[in-house]
Amino acid sequence: MASQQPVTAAVLIIGDEILSGRTQDINLSAIAKYLGTYGIDLAEGRIVPDDEDEIVAAVNHLRAKYDYLITTGGIGPTHDDITADCVAKAFGVTLYEHPEIIAMMQARWQGELNAARRRMARVPEGGSLVKNPVQGPPGFQIGNVFVLAGVPSIMRGMLEDVGPRLKGGAVVIARTLRVDGSGEGAIAAPLEAVALAHPDLSLGSYPFFSNAGYGSNLVVRGRDGAEVEATMIELAATLREAGITGLTEIDAPA
Amino acid sequence: MASQQPVTAAVLIIGDEILSGRTQDINLSAIAKYLGTYGIDLAEGRIVPDDEDEIVAAVNHLRAKYDYLITTGGIGPTHDDITADCVAKAFGVTLYEHPEIIAMMQARWQGELNAARRRMARVPEGGSLVKNPVQGPPGFQIGNVFVLAGVPSIMRGMLEDVGPRLKGGAVVIARTLRVDGSGEGAIAAPLEAVALAHPDLSLGSYPFFSNAGYGSNLVVRGRDGAEVEATMIELAATLREAGITGLTEIDAPA
Repeated sequence: MASQQPVTAAVLIIGDEILSGRTQDINLSAIAKYLGTYGIDLAEGRIVPDDEDEIVAAVNHLRAKYDYLITTGGIGPTHDDITADCVAKAFGVTLYEHPEIIAMMQARWQGELNAARRRMARVPEGGSLVKNPVQGPPGFQIGNVFVLAGVPSIMRGMLEDVGPRLKGGAVVIARTLRVDGSGEGAIAAPLEAVALAHPDLSLGSYPFFSNAGYGSNLVVRGRDGAEVEATMIELAATLREAGITGLTEIDAPA
Repeated sequence: MASQQPVTAAVLIIGDEILSGRTQDINLSAIAKYLGTYGIDLAEGRIVPDDEDEIVAAVNHLRAKYDYLITTGGIGPTHDDITADCVAKAFGVTLYEHPEIIAMMQARWQGELNAARRRMARVPEGGSLVKNPVQGPPGFQIGNVFVLAGVPSIMRGMLEDVGPRLKGGAVVIARTLRVDGSGEGAIAAPLEAVALAHPDLSLGSYPFFSNAGYGSNLVVRGRDGAEVEATMIELAATLREAGITGLTEIDAPA
């Protein structure tokens, strides 16, 4: 049964290629949505370079502060793939070659396992494997830390083996009210009045601008579905009283 | 004249909408590329919710650790826009209504300034304005911290007024060697050999997979353009000696 206590997670994105701007991260939002379906809040994200001290410090800080930590990137066979080493160091344990991964690789490469490929078979003592349904070696879990690939299609595949291991919170319900033709300056006061009346909910305003027009998406999020729905009605009424038109209720990811 | 000392920056992305997965951040990679043209390394990224304690702690940590900090998001008029308050608190100063912003807004809204809009005119004592060539009020700079909008088109416009204030490092040169048809397991050993011979350079491997095939982009980055070019030639030769084919030199953003 889902607990009513918020369950929190952090994401640690590891890789110079993200910080150089060469690669656009799309894993954080995918993980956020995935955790949302389990009622778990993504509470913080960090992006660090392929640097041992930085990775170890971030792993230790985030795993202590949040219920779960999910890392992405740095688990390939090349010299700059140091995530497994750093996570082992953070936990104060050593890495060993996991026999299941070695067997899997020997089957795939007909026994030709060079040193680089063997690197990918290393798992910290006390860790368990996270299945990789896409291709290549698995990720691993140690304690409350899940170590996943950086390639988005593989990361998403691995994530499917993470969810069943999580203790879920209450699922967060989100509803969006789209306001066309009004800026945030006009919306802010009625929105704040409704937000103050519902301290358990999160009310946010996300403006948009395009050639076709402007406006804002107002998102009401919370764990009590009935309160979220009632607040959507209250918000629309409060906006109309303030003379704001162009309201449309649209769906939003939880 | 550009210094040879690495100059570093961090990005702090502020907003529940990023952590919920509702909005995909694209500002970090844009800032990374922009800083790259000034020879400045983006050394860390953080994503925090609209929470005062989290924002203040992150601002104070990151501004002390790196040469520059750029924040995005949370500077609109709604109750959840608390970035200015938090940055002022981090610096131990108060906010005041900046007369230029008030005048700008009065001109735009013909004197109709409600409380929500006035919120956007607040700047910390000791801060200076960062021009907004797109729309809406400006951002601001205080010390080594630049506070920019979260909407990407506006953020990028504001960024143009940030660069000229930065002391640049040496520009980083990046070149990419695309390898088609070989996995990282085969590439790792020759790549590492070349990387070990050039400790001043950063060599990374970024695998790709698609229906059309697979391979990896090998990126050589460094501040010495001649060494980068020579290393590209050495890398290609070392890969060929290892029996790897399908090499193509392609451009990459700096």
